Amino acid sequence: MTILTGTAQEQKAFTLEDVIPGGSNYFNLVPKNMPGLAWWGDVCIRTDVEEIKSVDTKSGEETTLVTLEEVNKAMAGKMTYKPTAGIKPLRTLMDASMPWGDRKTIVFFNKAENGDDYMVWYDFGKKEIVNMFRLEASQGKSPANIDFCKENGAVAYTVGRDLFVADKGDFSRMINPATMGNAADFESDVVYGQSVHRNEFGITKGTFWSPKGTCLAFYRMDQSMVTDYPQVNTSTRIATLEPDKYPMAGMTSHKVTVGVYNMKTGKTVYLQAGDPTDRYFTNISWSPDEKNIYLIELNRNQNHAQLVRYNAITGEKEAVLYEEEHPKYVEPQHPITFLPWDDTKFIYWSQRDGYHHLYLMDTEKETSPETKKGKDGETTFREYLETVPLTQGDWLVQEILGFNTGEKEIIIGSTEISPLQTNIFSLRAKTGKRTLIGRQDGMHSARLSASGKHIIDNFTSANVAREIYILPTDGGKGVTLLTATDPMKERFDLPEISIGTIKAADGVTDLYYRLIKPTDFDPNKKYPAIIYVYGGPHAQLIHNNRFYDARGWDLYMAQKGYVMLTVDGRGSDNRGLKFENCTFRRLGEEEMKDQMKGVELLKSLPFVDSARIGVHGWSFGGFMTTNLMLTYPDTFKAGVAGGPVIDWKYYEVMYGERYMDTPQTNPEGYKATDLKQKAGNLKGRLEIIIGGTDPTCVPQHTYTFLRSCIDAGTHPDLFIYPEDGHNMIGRDRVHLHEHITRYFDDHLK
Amino acid sequence: MTILTGTAQEQKAFTLEDVIPGGSNYFNLVPKNMPGLAWWGDVCIRTDVEEIKSVDTKSGEETTLVTLEEVNKAMAGKMTYKPTAGIKPLRTLMDASMPWGDRKTIVFFNKAENGDDYMVWYDFGKKEIVNMFRLEASQGKSPANIDFCKENGAVAYTVGRDLFVADKGDFSRMINPATMGNAADFESDVVYGQSVHRNEFGITKGTFWSPKGTCLAFYRMDQSMVTDYPQVNTSTRIATLEPDKYPMAGMTSHKVTVGVYNMKTGKTVYLQAGDPTDRYFTNISWSPDEKNIYLIELNRNQNHAQLVRYNAITGEKEAVLYEEEHPKYVEPQHPITFLPWDDTKFIYWSQRDGYHHLYLMDTEKETSPETKKGKDGETTFREYLETVPLTQGDWLVQEILGFNTGEKEIIIGSTEISPLQTNIFSLRAKTGKRTLIGRQDGMHSARLSASGKHIIDNFTSANVAREIYILPTDGGKGVTLLTATDPMKERFDLPEISIGTIKAADGVTDLYYRLIKPTDFDPNKKYPAIIYVYGGPHAQLIHNNRFYDARGWDLYMAQKGYVMLTVDGRGSDNRGLKFENCTFRRLGEEEMKDQMKGVELLKSLPFVDSARIGVHGWSFGGFMTTNLMLTYPDTFKAGVAGGPVIDWKYYEVMYGERYMDTPQTNPEGYKATDLKQKAGNLKGRLEIIIGGTDPTCVPQHTYTFLRSCIDAGTHPDLFIYPEDGHNMIGRDRVHLHEHITRYFDDHLK
Repeated sequence: MTILTGTAQEQKAFTLEDVIPGGSNYFNLVPKNMPGLAWWGDVCIRTDVEEIKSVDTKSGEETTLVTLEEVNKAMAGKMTYKPTAGIKPLRTLMDASMPWGDRKTIVFFNKAENGDDYMVWYDFGKKEIVNMFRLEASQGKSPANIDFCKENGAVAYTVGRDLFVADKGDFSRMINPATMGNAADFESDVVYGQSVHRNEFGITKGTFWSPKGTCLAFYRMDQSMVTDYPQVNTSTRIATLEPDKYPMAGMTSHKVTVGVYNMKTGKTVYLQAGDPTDRYFTNISWSPDEKNIYLIELNRNQNHAQLVRYNAITGEKEAVLYEEEHPKYVEPQHPITFLPWDDTKFIYWSQRDGYHHLYLMDTEKETSPETKKGKDGETTFREYLETVPLTQGDWLVQEILGFNTGEKEIIIGSTEISPLQTNIFSLRAKTGKRTLIGRQDGMHSARLSASGKHIIDNFTSANVAREIYILPTDGGKGVTLLTATDPMKERFDLPEISIGTIKAADGVTDLYYRLIKPTDFDPNKKYPAIIYVYGGPHAQLIHNNRFYDARGWDLYMAQKGYVMLTVDGRGSDNRGLKFENCTFRRLGEEEMKDQMKGVELLKSLPFVDSARIGVHGWSFGGFMTTNLMLTYPDTFKAGVAGGPVIDWKYYEVMYGERYMDTPQTNPEGYKATDLKQKAGNLKGRLEIIIGGTDPTCVPQHTYTFLRSCIDAGTHPDLFIYPEDGHNMIGRDRVHLHEHITRYFDDHLK
Repeated sequence: MTILTGTAQEQKAFTLEDVIPGGSNYFNLVPKNMPGLAWWGDVCIRTDVEEIKSVDTKSGEETTLVTLEEVNKAMAGKMTYKPTAGIKPLRTLMDASMPWGDRKTIVFFNKAENGDDYMVWYDFGKKEIVNMFRLEASQGKSPANIDFCKENGAVAYTVGRDLFVADKGDFSRMINPATMGNAADFESDVVYGQSVHRNEFGITKGTFWSPKGTCLAFYRMDQSMVTDYPQVNTSTRIATLEPDKYPMAGMTSHKVTVGVYNMKTGKTVYLQAGDPTDRYFTNISWSPDEKNIYLIELNRNQNHAQLVRYNAITGEKEAVLYEEEHPKYVEPQHPITFLPWDDTKFIYWSQRDGYHHLYLMDTEKETSPETKKGKDGETTFREYLETVPLTQGDWLVQEILGFNTGEKEIIIGSTEISPLQTNIFSLRAKTGKRTLIGRQDGMHSARLSASGKHIIDNFTSANVAREIYILPTDGGKGVTLLTATDPMKERFDLPEISIGTIKAADGVTDLYYRLIKPTDFDPNKKYPAIIYVYGGPHAQLIHNNRFYDARGWDLYMAQKGYVMLTVDGRGSDNRGLKFENCTFRRLGEEEMKDQMKGVELLKSLPFVDSARIGVHGWSFGGFMTTNLMLTYPDTFKAGVAGGPVIDWKYYEVMYGERYMDTPQTNPEGYKATDLKQKAGNLKGRLEIIIGGTDPTCVPQHTYTFLRSCIDAGTHPDLFIYPEDGHNMIGRDRVHLHEHITRYFDDHLK
């Protein structure tokens, strides 16, 4: 080991400003990236502030296509389309896109002098602005949820509760029925064109253009029957109420319907899905011919999913195509996708065989359905169309990147090589044969070209800071665009990070753990140790990428002399259905048992001081932290729980009831997992930290827990980030980690 | 010193349960008292749960007058008056009163089986219930602000926003205009019959019976123009908004008017005081003949008070009787009082000569007013009636207990003997001659008999746990009813408590301090020290009573090995006008300088560790604590600030503007005293503790301060008592002091 002295040695220690997102030096210490890489048809382009360049897929050579200067020159010159107020110069090309592979056109949004938002099309062949139109704004609210359709050139967007479409000139079309415009609009009880069901079931948006741009499907959500959670903004002259519609577990939920707006007729029809009470309408998709819309419909109990086809013109329900049931829950998260080379077949995602896999359904081959059992042993399903599995095995598909139409291949990301990785494969639709694209190890984030013949492969692993390639999807050799080094490794002595597996509390399942030894590790010393935990569904804290996913704070604490451990226990992501759903109706119980296996590991290490074990986590991890402190009070000396769930009855309907059912149907489960019941057990030092207006784990969790502790005579600590939400970002995130560090230094060091 | 060993020694240490109000053993360690002592005309009575006894004023001998048993027998028997539902047995006589000195009648409130409230009159001569009537309730709201008139036997009370009078049978009269009754009534914007102006200006109630019971004057407060502070109750299924009308400094305030309801005609007239915008109507009183009502009216700037007479029948304004102005503020806190032996003269309270003194004004002798200057050198006043001072001197009158009509004496409490004491005097109206009643030392809390010939004197001092006497007001010898010992002194080794004076930062003024040395004090040790501070107007922390006013927590911390210091600095109570108002427009600045004189004292003590000085205070004391931590960051190592003011612009209009003017007229003062501006100075450990729905120092103070600290990169700590208000009471108060103690043990010990 090289020992540096004096000034040089001081440089070896990094600070939170170096390693926390939001820190003043954070971006200087992240391996280089190329954020502006994208596809223009089959041409790779790289956008930066001043220029858009093409990148040769064989040589990597760059050629300038467009400059910011010429765009601004065109906007300053004579234009066919004139905004009411003068248009401001564009400041960066980074947000411009090139949607049409066959047209030399870039599109971007820009502001006029009066603050109005315009969509602008610039033709870099003609070197002129070829289209420009204004987006509506009202009462100081800006356009949001902007959804551009390259087929018809129109933009769908929302302002407050309203949904608009714009495609030319100064005036947008409002799609929802006009209401009296007033300042309370934003709080209005019915919203159009926005994401629904609290972004569960893979829902991230509220508008869905039809494949040829003829129609716009959109969500309408009536929240008038949902209780308000009274959030308070204290940054105004006098604190103001900012109520948030928050349907709590077991309480009345919102009602969602799906509308279809026809751009030609200007008329809207609603899908005739029946009474929307206690139902989820998820994963909207269109048939290629625009005649049909498909929804995956779910009952409130979330144990019965149906793939349903609607007539997009009349709104009539036409057929149920597939049904899936599970005694615990079914969780559809992906819309169906039609094969581009065969409009009669689409891909359906299911976990019925134990892992997320793809199934090809043939719309022309109806079957008489019978109830079958999935390979997971618990799912039952009914197929109304002939269905063949495209993938199978004890690994899972994570994404469909798109298609190589020429080769009739589906390009996917999956965990086939390791549950700690995403690798990219081409999947031959006919045979199911998969070909690896890119390196075997690490995490691959890819973007597929229009034809599907190339990907841009952004690759990182524990040993590779970052490499970016353009790779042919036939498995051949491509071109390297970037080979980055890790500034952290170059500038600092970093702690030793290792991963391994331990057995879960069930004695069978392998769990991955990540262990970080203190910097300047001395095997003869006794160090305090901190478990950083999440533990809930949909998350996985260990991957084969930079530092095995260890966050800057983990490294920082190791530098300060703490042993850092993370275990991805049962209930967490990317390990299949049973690994996740063993926690059903008793969230936290199995998860804690697995974390205690991590504690066993720590205690087996001669350099860990068993009397000084701490725990930290956020959100579900805050729930776990609090729960571990209360359930194993003699194990943990100190803990910091961020934005914790305390009682699942205060959590929202969609996520909460999936795992816990309702307080009415699972009273024992809710009681057993209600941390207020254990408030009297607190022995160690526990700090709870929340955002003052956390809209996800509402402040009520923490306040009622404090009340229970006070009544039980125990003493948690507390900190609040006023006006922050479920997570602290920017400068607040640095402050937060100073705060957390100080707490462990106070009580664990 | 006696050293006990083993178990016995353990008994010597008291716990927070022993010394904090709300603690399980607190009441066992308070010196005995006789809470049920009162006057029935000139007969002293003592009420306990089971009996009311008379107490002979000469011998102290007790004779039973009424028993609970006979009252309940009468209520169970045949009654002239029958409630709709059965009346419940009375459980205690402690809340019964005997309003009429010439009638053998007790009155009390009691509940019927259905929860209705009844007023009950029991004649213990006839041994029967002689009157009973029901008080209104509505939508689960109980009668409040109950005001009984012994002259007419009626009860005024409020339910929600409404004002009622009841005097017989089942039905009450509603005095305010009827409104649509609904669940939102309580939040309604206009309230009747309740205290107004946020209980400033000595206002504690909203109903005022005329001397013969003919009329009821009442406050009406329109708050529709006042902003809501959005308080949130998190103890409900889903958190609920509980908005509170809170006029903040410089913002729009409520409008108050005074109505007069005539019991005979059932009509209400309102005093024609003109536009109530930005005006305070304080200190309502009646003329003995019921023809006039007097108000002390104050402008919003609070620097100009007028005593105004109104015609109680027509509501017309008749005359201004007295005016007082001060460049800082005038603060009327006492209504005028007519002499019982001379209806033409009344007593007015003023600080115009530098201290609260009494002035006798003659209604029959009008004068042509000229502007004069008070002896304080700053007050100007105009007398419209001939006025003679009744008291003068560099001490102040604290209360008028009543009158000895036979001797034409006023019975007062004052600080004449010491600013640390309240002593009782008879004051001869004609000559101003004062005669001390009771012992020279200590604090005296007295109740005067109907004729004014006797007081019940409840006496405590640093050396006397409690003594209760009946004393003749002629200064003669009375009878001792109680000589209590102090269980704390008997059972525990207590720390040494001493008082003394130091010079204020002005170099002139004497300030009182209280110093507590650690139990088992060793002069060769170095102890940490904590300053317990309030520092604001209207409060004084040191008196010549039990432990010199030291609270249980102070003793507890001394027992744990802390030196405890309190200094009543300039700005605090009972030292006169200039002592208080030197803080004008810059609250905290002079007050801190005086606390730093206390720090000097601590540093001069060889047994104090100057590196370990802490500070703690609540409310204004929380403001002082935070301010001291930020202004003298190298002096204070740790502080705990409870319910602090952070920025006076978040405080309410009445109290805040008196001392600070408005943010518009005193922007420099508001900025200079805004602790957010100093958030970056924090070096020591500062914990802020608030009640989650503090209606006095609203949570916005603390949240905005946290935000400023986060932005400035400093690290305060925080704790919140959900659903608690400005102070923690009961069990929460014990928990609070465990919490505060732990914080100092963590960071100062």
